[in-house]
Amino acid sequence: MKNYCLKVAYDGTRFSGFQKQGNTENTIQRVLEDVFSDILGESIEVIASGRTDLGVHAIGQIINFKTNSEVSKDKILKFANKELSGDIVCKSIEEVDIRFHARYNAVKKKYLYKIDNGNFPNPFIRKYAYFYEGKVDIEKMRVAAKLFIGEQDFKAFSADKRKKKSTIRTIYDVQVNRNEDDINIVIEGNGFLYNMVRIISGTLLEVGIGKMEASNVTDIIKSQNRSESGIMLPPKGLYLLEVEYGN
Amino acid sequence: MKNYCLKVAYDGTRFSGFQKQGNTENTIQRVLEDVFSDILGESIEVIASGRTDLGVHAIGQIINFKTNSEVSKDKILKFANKELSGDIVCKSIEEVDIRFHARYNAVKKKYLYKIDNGNFPNPFIRKYAYFYEGKVDIEKMRVAAKLFIGEQDFKAFSADKRKKKSTIRTIYDVQVNRNEDDINIVIEGNGFLYNMVRIISGTLLEVGIGKMEASNVTDIIKSQNRSESGIMLPPKGLYLLEVEYGN
Repeated sequence: MKNYCLKVAYDGTRFSGFQKQGNTENTIQRVLEDVFSDILGESIEVIASGRTDLGVHAIGQIINFKTNSEVSKDKILKFANKELSGDIVCKSIEEVDIRFHARYNAVKKKYLYKIDNGNFPNPFIRKYAYFYEGKVDIEKMRVAAKLFIGEQDFKAFSADKRKKKSTIRTIYDVQVNRNEDDINIVIEGNGFLYNMVRIISGTLLEVGIGKMEASNVTDIIKSQNRSESGIMLPPKGLYLLEVEYGN
Repeated sequence: MKNYCLKVAYDGTRFSGFQKQGNTENTIQRVLEDVFSDILGESIEVIASGRTDLGVHAIGQIINFKTNSEVSKDKILKFANKELSGDIVCKSIEEVDIRFHARYNAVKKKYLYKIDNGNFPNPFIRKYAYFYEGKVDIEKMRVAAKLFIGEQDFKAFSADKRKKKSTIRTIYDVQVNRNEDDINIVIEGNGFLYNMVRIISGTLLEVGIGKMEASNVTDIIKSQNRSESGIMLPPKGLYLLEVEYGN
């Protein structure tokens, strides 16, 4: 038996998120499983580094699956991209240790949140960024961004109302950059709570437009109260950029 | 009566080109005329700097229309963007001399042709660039690009088979640049023949991949023979970038 690890990019616009749910046909997991099962002639189960929600995109999602098939990895990659319809692309494939698990072994993830801050919504990224027209102070966002770094309880930045699981996570870095009309927020951490990147991005945007003070971020984190943090930005601006694995 | 000039961007993917044709509903011209007629309460005729074909995009298309309405230009812009569905955006509006004509007064146009030259088609620009996977030599393309500059007969670079009209045009500049995986070809001229930018771009790409020699471009131009020039690239990579007007 072989274990293959693939890097996958997708435009999440028309999908109901990554994870299979009941009979929902158009999840990314189901599309990938159908394609690989078809190529390999056996039922394939795809494991991802983590789910992405409805409408969320990926540039470097990592998945793995096991197979008894002897089809070469180059052919798997080639056939998969031929069968997929262009909004999902397999960028690379490698054979990995049979124990490798895309979710359990992930140690770091990097997300991008993209805001279109032009005078008018750019028609070419209307499905790939959140449009905000007003003046945004990037420097203020950067000051706030630094306050998210570290091992902290991010309960105030989660939309998940279940109380059992730990809400402590470690954020390694938060970068805010402007590229022409786009504002790119890149957040790196050891794991993320439900909707956490979208709520942190919304909070940073509120700081950037003067609705919140950067210095309040520390208090908001301490509050552990979702009603203290900023708005949750929509999924279309969010991208899973990279997943890192330990040795 | 007032004459308004607007800069318009559009994602051409779902449109049958700019120009109204019989009963075709989904041309950009018809959508704009419907929206402006609705806002201004009178039948509006939209004139563009030039048509763009089915699937071709625009970042800086220029249009004008005349109206007797007293609705302010700020309101026209605001209402238009509210009514339009996001794949067409009006970026600016100004009142111009009553004699201004977006097509007749245009003196220069700039087009962009975008090639996705990554290892795999980028799902986020699959509708906005032509994907070419192989190795492309940008330096060779640049050598060839310079040979297009000047007042020349570009008959070999037109898909129009009618023979009456002049096929002489002046190209002011052709730039070829790489930006990560994208190759951007920017062509500036006083006017362009039917499909000329797409055929020049295809010829440059064939030079870049070694199917043609850069030095042959001069002979191809001289031949005035469409069968000597390179392939015509598809419309989805083409953008009308800018239109310039004289004083």
